[in-house]
Amino acid sequence: MQDLNLPDFDDVIAAHERIAPHIHRTPILTSEYFDDLTGASLFFKCENFQKAGAFKVRGASNAVFGLSDEQAEKGVATHSSGNHGLSLSYAAGRRGIPVSVVVPRTAPQAKKDAMKGYGARVVECEPSTSSREAVFADVVAQTGADFVHPYNDPRVIAGQATCSREMMEQVEGLDAVIAPIGGGGMVSGTCLTLSNIAPNVEIYAAEPEQADDAYRSFKAGHIIADDAPVTVADGLKVPLKDRTWHFVSNHVTDILLASEQEIIDAMHLTWQRMKIVIEPSCAVPLATILKNRDTFAGKRVGVIITGGNVDLKALPWMNS
Amino acid sequence: MQDLNLPDFDDVIAAHERIAPHIHRTPILTSEYFDDLTGASLFFKCENFQKAGAFKVRGASNAVFGLSDEQAEKGVATHSSGNHGLSLSYAAGRRGIPVSVVVPRTAPQAKKDAMKGYGARVVECEPSTSSREAVFADVVAQTGADFVHPYNDPRVIAGQATCSREMMEQVEGLDAVIAPIGGGGMVSGTCLTLSNIAPNVEIYAAEPEQADDAYRSFKAGHIIADDAPVTVADGLKVPLKDRTWHFVSNHVTDILLASEQEIIDAMHLTWQRMKIVIEPSCAVPLATILKNRDTFAGKRVGVIITGGNVDLKALPWMNS
Repeated sequence: MQDLNLPDFDDVIAAHERIAPHIHRTPILTSEYFDDLTGASLFFKCENFQKAGAFKVRGASNAVFGLSDEQAEKGVATHSSGNHGLSLSYAAGRRGIPVSVVVPRTAPQAKKDAMKGYGARVVECEPSTSSREAVFADVVAQTGADFVHPYNDPRVIAGQATCSREMMEQVEGLDAVIAPIGGGGMVSGTCLTLSNIAPNVEIYAAEPEQADDAYRSFKAGHIIADDAPVTVADGLKVPLKDRTWHFVSNHVTDILLASEQEIIDAMHLTWQRMKIVIEPSCAVPLATILKNRDTFAGKRVGVIITGGNVDLKALPWMNS
Repeated sequence: MQDLNLPDFDDVIAAHERIAPHIHRTPILTSEYFDDLTGASLFFKCENFQKAGAFKVRGASNAVFGLSDEQAEKGVATHSSGNHGLSLSYAAGRRGIPVSVVVPRTAPQAKKDAMKGYGARVVECEPSTSSREAVFADVVAQTGADFVHPYNDPRVIAGQATCSREMMEQVEGLDAVIAPIGGGGMVSGTCLTLSNIAPNVEIYAAEPEQADDAYRSFKAGHIIADDAPVTVADGLKVPLKDRTWHFVSNHVTDILLASEQEIIDAMHLTWQRMKIVIEPSCAVPLATILKNRDTFAGKRVGVIITGGNVDLKALPWMNS
């Protein structure tokens, strides 16, 4: 474990103090409609209302604001066309330091523009792993920037862990917490917090059937990585890495799956009934609660709504 | 004034007690993004999170739960294809009494189904005023139902007035409140509350340019009714009536207008940045604040988000 340089709960407390000026303490919403539908009491932690529109700003801010002044001058860098790139851009902008984000040239222009809006230098690569790695290595060599990995970074995991810490302060007597799983940053942070302050609370991870590498890893007992899964929940395509696998394999109660149509239906129903804008990824937990009623009925369940950054002109139910 | 049977503030207090078990005390949201954009401090009263998805449930519940047992047996009726029909259906369902809603046969099936879901009898008419009046008269003659007008009803105005009463408890030191205006029920309720408990707070009404009958009435000093205005803000097409005109003409500071594109842009921006689902009608106040910066900059402004019932498959920016 020492080799992995894993964060501990003191790192979470330090992260929370460090990032508090830069993030929202997001609200908890409840829904009688969904409580009736599921038989559970659901508490939605609304990170879609978070700065930059997603929980990822917690980990990114912890990394950025924890840098020495010397390193900060050289800036930070990452590869991400999604919420981590946006969040790192936001955090670097708040500190006023350089940030480079390597993005496939095929990524939506709106996402590139949003990063630039926060002051990022957006560097395009071809949409392949080899191109991304080559371009990213160049960027780091040129700038000396600190690499902030989207999830397999102890500073990032400690930052994400502040989300469930807030939730435990906001809601009493939770029996379980559920969050979507892609690379496992949020789930690892949740494991880190709950294993320290509420070890009896069950931790569920929710994953798309079509990107079920974490599920298969969990059942197999070792990391299985898919090459290029296709799912509407585009934040959940990435595989587990050593640090997140540590937390997932040690602390997660179970990983539950949902089909593409179940995810889209749960997303649509959330917009329609709760009147909040959530990403497809955030709908995966609700979709799995709806199809695993016996697992959750009668329980008080914290549901982490991870983000709300969607293209409002291309909603997944438009074609169904 | 006696002739008009206007509600007074005691009616508002009574309404609030009566409906409290049946409505949500909706939260206030803020947005640094919109504060920066407008130079004002905006406090969004989120009636899109209200029961049945709109503030209209306040007035409808006040009417339904104020009925004598004798009248309640005969039920209630209204004509509305929108939030009032849905809200009256919800309230009647909660009390377990009959409710008939006369709806143009051309209204969206989803709206009819939602009313039926709450237990309403949906009676179709042709999409004309004459047909609606004839069919509605038949319904009332057959059932003896109590007519709950969507806005020109003292019970409804007193019910809507509870919204601004809550907002004044939730936010200190407001300089102004702004709400969309169609028939004027919400604006009248706001006038009723503020003229009694906060007479120095300015009251603005926001209206689509393409349905600007309240604006023209306000400037002319008497009610001007349009026959069939066309606007994306479909909750705001109806004209003022005598009771709402009383409040609007006596207490409103000004009525501000926004174009269709300004409304759509403000709606899109709200979804994108605040991650909440709001109706086109709710975007009219923000659209007018954005184009009348000098009126609002430096002020603490309460913005009533009236509802969130939209067809998620037909969003107005899809065609623009």
